[in-house]
Amino acid sequence: MSKENTLDEHLLIQKYFSDIGSAYLAERNVELSVGDDAAVLNLNPDTQYINSIDTSIEDIHFLNSISPRDIAYRSCAIALSDLAACGANPSWYSIALTFPKADHLWLEDFASGLNDFSDEYKIPLVGGDTTKGKLSITVQVMGEVEKGKALLRSGAKENDLIYVSGVIGDAFLQLKELQKSQNQDTGFDAYLHPKAQIALGLELIDIASSAIDISDGLIQDLNLICKSSDVGADAHLSMIPTSVENKTLELINSGDDYQICFTASEDKSAKVNNISERLGVPITEIGKITNTKELTLFDHEGNKMDLESGYSHF
Amino acid sequence: MSKENTLDEHLLIQKYFSDIGSAYLAERNVELSVGDDAAVLNLNPDTQYINSIDTSIEDIHFLNSISPRDIAYRSCAIALSDLAACGANPSWYSIALTFPKADHLWLEDFASGLNDFSDEYKIPLVGGDTTKGKLSITVQVMGEVEKGKALLRSGAKENDLIYVSGVIGDAFLQLKELQKSQNQDTGFDAYLHPKAQIALGLELIDIASSAIDISDGLIQDLNLICKSSDVGADAHLSMIPTSVENKTLELINSGDDYQICFTASEDKSAKVNNISERLGVPITEIGKITNTKELTLFDHEGNKMDLESGYSHF
Repeated sequence: MSKENTLDEHLLIQKYFSDIGSAYLAERNVELSVGDDAAVLNLNPDTQYINSIDTSIEDIHFLNSISPRDIAYRSCAIALSDLAACGANPSWYSIALTFPKADHLWLEDFASGLNDFSDEYKIPLVGGDTTKGKLSITVQVMGEVEKGKALLRSGAKENDLIYVSGVIGDAFLQLKELQKSQNQDTGFDAYLHPKAQIALGLELIDIASSAIDISDGLIQDLNLICKSSDVGADAHLSMIPTSVENKTLELINSGDDYQICFTASEDKSAKVNNISERLGVPITEIGKITNTKELTLFDHEGNKMDLESGYSHF
Repeated sequence: MSKENTLDEHLLIQKYFSDIGSAYLAERNVELSVGDDAAVLNLNPDTQYINSIDTSIEDIHFLNSISPRDIAYRSCAIALSDLAACGANPSWYSIALTFPKADHLWLEDFASGLNDFSDEYKIPLVGGDTTKGKLSITVQVMGEVEKGKALLRSGAKENDLIYVSGVIGDAFLQLKELQKSQNQDTGFDAYLHPKAQIALGLELIDIASSAIDISDGLIQDLNLICKSSDVGADAHLSMIPTSVENKTLELINSGDDYQICFTASEDKSAKVNNISERLGVPITEIGKITNTKELTLFDHEGNKMDLESGYSHF
């Protein structure tokens, strides 16, 4: 559901929006603008603030059959995932909610999903806007990170190992089940209640050389690390963690995985394993950064796979 | 176009969203949360940061016949108006853009509207999100104000004079013309190119006792000052500045006026007049704050008008 309906967002944003008002970045204390998971802002001498905004639309980003409570929680967790990939500690969020009619039961249930989210990440809702229209939720999140410590896409170096958190493709598999089933009670957490990997992002500070949220698809997002870091990558399909045996390109690049792909030098591998055990979050090595400036995915027989077809376009 | 399609936003937000995660406000340095024009955040010892978010939707908040450049500029200026009413100096903005298809000419023209906006207020675009769907633009703006100086809705005192900036109802009149006309070349600036009254907001610090952006309608928004300040107000229809002689309730409460309604004690009136002259912005006295806890609007004969019908509901 998600891929064929999303824009090739990275290219669009780069082409049309990356330089708007860039003359004012320095005087407005903006350290990093359009192009990473989030913006980095210098608002006091010791701390950098990380800002991100994400829209979830009915029938594109979530099934219209899921409960308002799940819609609210999911929309917020998705937005927070960009902060996790920056190693930020969440501070607060605001939402712009567009909905077709003021149904009080619906709003009450939606608000309870926001409460779940606030309680899970211990952050308040600080503001919002409500408008009438087709259901759509835009969530803005702000977090903070010690100055200079934010995890960016741009730091990967040759020979760094490539890791991914969690299990890839579960949200995609669960969405397919949900589209067939009326019963949403159990077994759909990857789709209905995605977790932003905040704790992991915080632990990766001073360890990861680069990081990205892989919600647009693991391969596509790893490619953005390569482009931002001016490196290449060799990744192996067989090493990518999935819950089913048939690791197709469609599955591992399906998006909707609110996990972190990151790189770290080989001498950090014991620390990475230690973090995985401590947090109880699977972290799997899937390949290595190269100096080729090209991302290559090898299949089970060691042959290069054709990646073009796995990319999303408008 | 706007009134009958907007929610009674204030009531909705108050009822469902005002307390979400409020247990975490203090630890997250949030000074003021849901309920004013914008949120007030303490991110360093000397400065408070002001955050606001606003959605503009095709056919509800703007005519689909206006140019992408005007749509972009208008959507951003509308969001910035909330910061003006807080007396904030704008810092940067981010946008979440939903649009039906990747039309390059459209995107180029839209981007040029963002450039116009960035150049006018000297602020950079720091991030964004693009999604596919019916045209909708959510703009998040952040600004700063010296600690403790933000203009709020809650400071109006008995006997304060009530002022409004600009001319009320022009956007409403222009919208009616635009709905009939193909020619959008001149004379439609109030609707197509609204200005956020940033300079005025900055000047009103230490002068205004309360302030609000009146984009939801002058009477409705003045009523929010009364409720937040626990006071009443006597306002006079004949004193409200309009460009046509027939001052109807529909006209003066039509919304889409990106102006500031504020209160100030009588001894500040010379300063208020001086600001008006210096900035070249009309500022008109329209009434007085009372201790009645009720907002009363008097017609040309001095009779109380029925205000209920002028309020918007979902």
